[in-house]
Amino acid sequence: MAYYVGIDLGGTNIKAGVCDSEGNLLNKLSIKTRAERTEEEIIHDMGKLALDVIKDCGKEVSDIEAIGIGSPGTPDNEEGLLVYSANLPFNNSPMRKLIRDVVDLPVYIDNDANCAGMAEAVAGAAKGTKDSVTITLGTGVGAGVIINGRIYSGFNQAGSEFGHTVLVSGGLQCKCGRRGCFEQYASASALARMTEEEAASHPDSILGDVIKEEGGSNAMIAFIAMRRGDKVAKDLVERYLDYLSDGLANVINTFMPEILVVGGGVCNEGDPLLIPLKEKTMSKPYFGPGVKKTEIRLAEMGNDAGIVGAAMMGKACMDDGKNGK
Amino acid sequence: MAYYVGIDLGGTNIKAGVCDSEGNLLNKLSIKTRAERTEEEIIHDMGKLALDVIKDCGKEVSDIEAIGIGSPGTPDNEEGLLVYSANLPFNNSPMRKLIRDVVDLPVYIDNDANCAGMAEAVAGAAKGTKDSVTITLGTGVGAGVIINGRIYSGFNQAGSEFGHTVLVSGGLQCKCGRRGCFEQYASASALARMTEEEAASHPDSILGDVIKEEGGSNAMIAFIAMRRGDKVAKDLVERYLDYLSDGLANVINTFMPEILVVGGGVCNEGDPLLIPLKEKTMSKPYFGPGVKKTEIRLAEMGNDAGIVGAAMMGKACMDDGKNGK
Repeated sequence: MAYYVGIDLGGTNIKAGVCDSEGNLLNKLSIKTRAERTEEEIIHDMGKLALDVIKDCGKEVSDIEAIGIGSPGTPDNEEGLLVYSANLPFNNSPMRKLIRDVVDLPVYIDNDANCAGMAEAVAGAAKGTKDSVTITLGTGVGAGVIINGRIYSGFNQAGSEFGHTVLVSGGLQCKCGRRGCFEQYASASALARMTEEEAASHPDSILGDVIKEEGGSNAMIAFIAMRRGDKVAKDLVERYLDYLSDGLANVINTFMPEILVVGGGVCNEGDPLLIPLKEKTMSKPYFGPGVKKTEIRLAEMGNDAGIVGAAMMGKACMDDGKNGK
Repeated sequence: MAYYVGIDLGGTNIKAGVCDSEGNLLNKLSIKTRAERTEEEIIHDMGKLALDVIKDCGKEVSDIEAIGIGSPGTPDNEEGLLVYSANLPFNNSPMRKLIRDVVDLPVYIDNDANCAGMAEAVAGAAKGTKDSVTITLGTGVGAGVIINGRIYSGFNQAGSEFGHTVLVSGGLQCKCGRRGCFEQYASASALARMTEEEAASHPDSILGDVIKEEGGSNAMIAFIAMRRGDKVAKDLVERYLDYLSDGLANVINTFMPEILVVGGGVCNEGDPLLIPLKEKTMSKPYFGPGVKKTEIRLAEMGNDAGIVGAAMMGKACMDDGKNGK
């Protein structure tokens, strides 16, 4: 059996684990990112973490085929660089070289949302399919597009930014500079923002009470208030699902994946979210009569998606004979 | 040299030609579709047209590797069917079998917009690239997505329907059933419709005069009136380009193609369309600093795109060892 290290680089934590070639996660370790440090210091720690997790797993470096890294931002996997990351001090950082100074293995780099898509495709909700898309609802809306078993992100590895496609022309200002982006309406942050707005304009609803209970707004509050019978909350969830399903139908009409996976904390709501979301989404797309339909599923990989997806991205690069040195 | 027949099935005409393996079109013939006929009659004529165009080219059937067919609607290339077509009497039609009753060659079927994308990728504006997208502005908005030199249209061959992604949530009713689809704002038909609306609400503008001169509204009128100094027409073109560029930026953020090709009759406007369109589009996307940028080009294949793309789709299927019998 061949083994792969996956590293999930985040703004708060760096997580790493060892996976087998089927995406089974054997162990994992985590350290703080401390993003105020230099890129050299952070990347050096990533290399050390890789060594630690290999040892923790009872393996030798020689047992490992490759290291895959999932990072926010835009990588250049050919040159081994992290070109750009919004929340981390990386700017054309020679990540491959700096990791390899610590551990002598092939190193591959891709975007974190793409790696989440890879994890679901190999070992999660889209296991067994060749074409799938994973949409992750968090601070933004991440998308991981898998075509023929491989991550697709365009000629510059900057594509599949579905969160930054305009759904409401001339709508809300997005941090990317455009107006009306999907993530302004369908991310977990968007739902938390809409919840605050509704609580303010409907002081008779219980949204405000739940916000106080929770110590601030978040994407769960509308669902909690809805379960307590609040009409304003019910309408808010309905409106959120209208936007989300419009965006998901756009993903389907664009990619027609066999499975469309939806993930992120808001998905912990389970069926009260999934059932109306499926209904709304599947009533919309542009299917000719008789055409096979995309299936919508909830993500299964949870917090390990980043590690497993990075490791499996590394495996795919090895299988394709890509240069990781 | 290997040769391929391409057939471009349209609602009005069926066109066919012989191409070499580099997408050079050697000859072409055309017959009327007469869409009121049965599917058997139409497909039988397509087979005869293939025989005629091979003979017209001075070749034998044995000189030809495969026949590629580009059709409106949704094909099933695996089973050799045309599953569905909005404007033609096809419903799970056994197109491969019926063509092969007339001419004994491998037959492959794909969507016409996908074939247009293939033509631009092999022999047109995106020649030499692996990843490109061709957007065709006509009655609707067609999209042909080429990934790694192959048409991508999802697990059911019904994807890359970018014309049916919502750009204006809750906006104009689209014939697909959704509201606010891209093609309601950016197709040639949309511009013709907006021109009529503007002419009606601004009788002082010269839009109405140009519509009379042209014998009806079309997508050229706004440009003609703008060139004559009409302010209403100038604003209309600006608004059209705002919508179109928003949709193109969505395509870029989604696919990050090396080249984004824009085609259709409205592109005959050339630089007065292309220069502001490029400016508007490229000012919008979500590029991290330092990331290579997509280039926007006008389509080059014109009316032959359907034939050449169908032939080159057939070649790609043969090269991939797909079953065409």
